Amino acid sequence: MVSASLETDGWLNFAKSVATHAGQMMVEARSKAAFSTDYKADHELVTSADLAVDAYICQQITQTFPDHVILSEESSPKLALAELANKPVWVIDPIDGTVNFAHGHRHVAVSIGLYLAGERVLGVVNAPFLEECFWAVKGKGAYLNDERLFVSQQTQCRNALVATGFPYDKSTLPSIIRRVSVILAKCQDIRRNGSAALDLCWVAAGRLDAYFESLKPWDMAAGALIAQEAGATIGRYEKINSSWPEAINGEALLVSVPALYEELLSLLSQA
Amino acid sequence: MVSASLETDGWLNFAKSVATHAGQMMVEARSKAAFSTDYKADHELVTSADLAVDAYICQQITQTFPDHVILSEESSPKLALAELANKPVWVIDPIDGTVNFAHGHRHVAVSIGLYLAGERVLGVVNAPFLEECFWAVKGKGAYLNDERLFVSQQTQCRNALVATGFPYDKSTLPSIIRRVSVILAKCQDIRRNGSAALDLCWVAAGRLDAYFESLKPWDMAAGALIAQEAGATIGRYEKINSSWPEAINGEALLVSVPALYEELLSLLSQA
Repeated sequence: MVSASLETDGWLNFAKSVATHAGQMMVEARSKAAFSTDYKADHELVTSADLAVDAYICQQITQTFPDHVILSEESSPKLALAELANKPVWVIDPIDGTVNFAHGHRHVAVSIGLYLAGERVLGVVNAPFLEECFWAVKGKGAYLNDERLFVSQQTQCRNALVATGFPYDKSTLPSIIRRVSVILAKCQDIRRNGSAALDLCWVAAGRLDAYFESLKPWDMAAGALIAQEAGATIGRYEKINSSWPEAINGEALLVSVPALYEELLSLLSQA
Repeated sequence: MVSASLETDGWLNFAKSVATHAGQMMVEARSKAAFSTDYKADHELVTSADLAVDAYICQQITQTFPDHVILSEESSPKLALAELANKPVWVIDPIDGTVNFAHGHRHVAVSIGLYLAGERVLGVVNAPFLEECFWAVKGKGAYLNDERLFVSQQTQCRNALVATGFPYDKSTLPSIIRRVSVILAKCQDIRRNGSAALDLCWVAAGRLDAYFESLKPWDMAAGALIAQEAGATIGRYEKINSSWPEAINGEALLVSVPALYEELLSLLSQA
C-alpha cells in the first residue's frame, strides 16, 4: 500500500505540474491574443489554444508514462475505454470553458483526471486566470491550492444556488428547459458560469450547492472526484445507456450537497 | 460648459472614491466573515454588509452634496423621482450580486450612477474582488480602470454570448423561461453570472454580446451608461407602464451590440 500511495503521489505531482504549465500557456495565448477560433460539429467553439494545450499535455503524458492511455476531448474523444480495464487512463480537457476563454472571461480551467480499474484516482482542475488550482486524490480529501475544501451546509432548496450548463447540440433543449424551470421555481437561483469542470470544484468549495448537466467524460473526470472528496453526493437524474465506464460517465449528472441531493434528484428526474 | 464639465469631473472623482472605499468594505467584511444574512420580501437575500455599505455611501453623499437626492435599493427604494426633475439623483446599489457575495464568488460590484434632468450623467461599477472598476461619463466613453472600452464586433446571433438574470419574485417565471428558450435556441450560449450591473459592464468590455432582464433602477443606472458609452444599443423588449424616469427604468431591458440588437429584440419580444 505504501508503494501504491507513493505512485499516486507521483501521478498527482505530475498532474499539478502539467496543469500549471498548461494554465500558463492559456494566459500567455490570451494576453497576446495569439489564438484563432474555429467551430467543430454542433457549432462547438474550438481555439488554437485548445489544440496547443492538448498537444503539450499529451506529449508530457506519453513521454513520462509511455504505457498509460489518454482520453482527450481534442485528440482522442472516441477511445474504446472498455478494452482498457487495467491501464491508467488520463482524461483531459485542455480548456474547459472555451467560449469563456475566447470572450476574455476568467472562469476557465484545464482539467486532468486519472482513472484506473473502474475508479477515479485523482483530479486537478487549474483555473489560471483566477490563480486557483483545485485537486483531490481518492480518499484523501479535496483542496483549493493548500486549503482543504468542504461542501456547503445548505439544507433548504429555496436557499440553494444551483449551476448548470447548456450543450452545443440544441436537440435536447426542451428537456433542459423543463429542468431549468423546475430548479428556478424551487431554488434560490441558477448560475451558468460556462465551465463544468470548474463549477464542480465550486460545489466542492461551497460556492454552489449543486450542479447538474449531461457532461462528457473530460468535463467531469477530475471535477467529480474533487466534489466527492469535499463531501458531495453524485448520481444521475436519468437512466443512461452508454458505453463509458461509470466513474467517468458524465451523462445526466447531479452533484449536490448531501442534504439536498434527494430533493434535487426528484425535481430533475420528474421534470 | 467648462463649469458643467468641471462639475461632472468632481462628481466622477467623488463616485470613484466612494466606490473604491465601498469595495474595500466588502472585501474586508468577507475576509473576516463579518456579515450576517437575512431575507427581504420575495425571499431576496440581504446581508449586513449591504446595509453597512449603503449607510457609508449615503452618508458620504449627504455630507458632500447636501442638496442632492439619493435613490438606494436598501434605504430609499420608493423615492418619488418624478417630483425631482432638476435635482441630481444618485442611484445606488451597495452590493449588486448579494447572493454571489454571500457564496464567496468574485462577480460582485458596487454600483453608483448619477441621474440629472432626465439623463444618465455618470456611472461607476466597482468589482473589488476582481480589481476591476468600470466607469463612464455621458459623451466621454467608457473605461475599465484606465482602458477605453468598446463592445464586441459580433454580427452573428448563433455566435453570440448573451447573459440574463432571474428575479427573486417567481411570478413571472413562465415568460422568462420562454425568453431563455428562444435565446438558447438561436444564440451560442447563455450566461447567468449573478450581477446585472457587472454584466452590463461586461457587454461594454466585449465579454458578452448582449444582456436582457427586467431590472430595478439601481441595477442598471450606472451599467447602462457604461454599456452605451462603449457602443451598445439599449431598448426594451416589452411595452412598459411604470413611473420610473426613462433613463433609470430597467424594465424589459435589452442591451446589445448594435449589429444584433434588432434580431435579439425581435426574438425576445415575440417569445
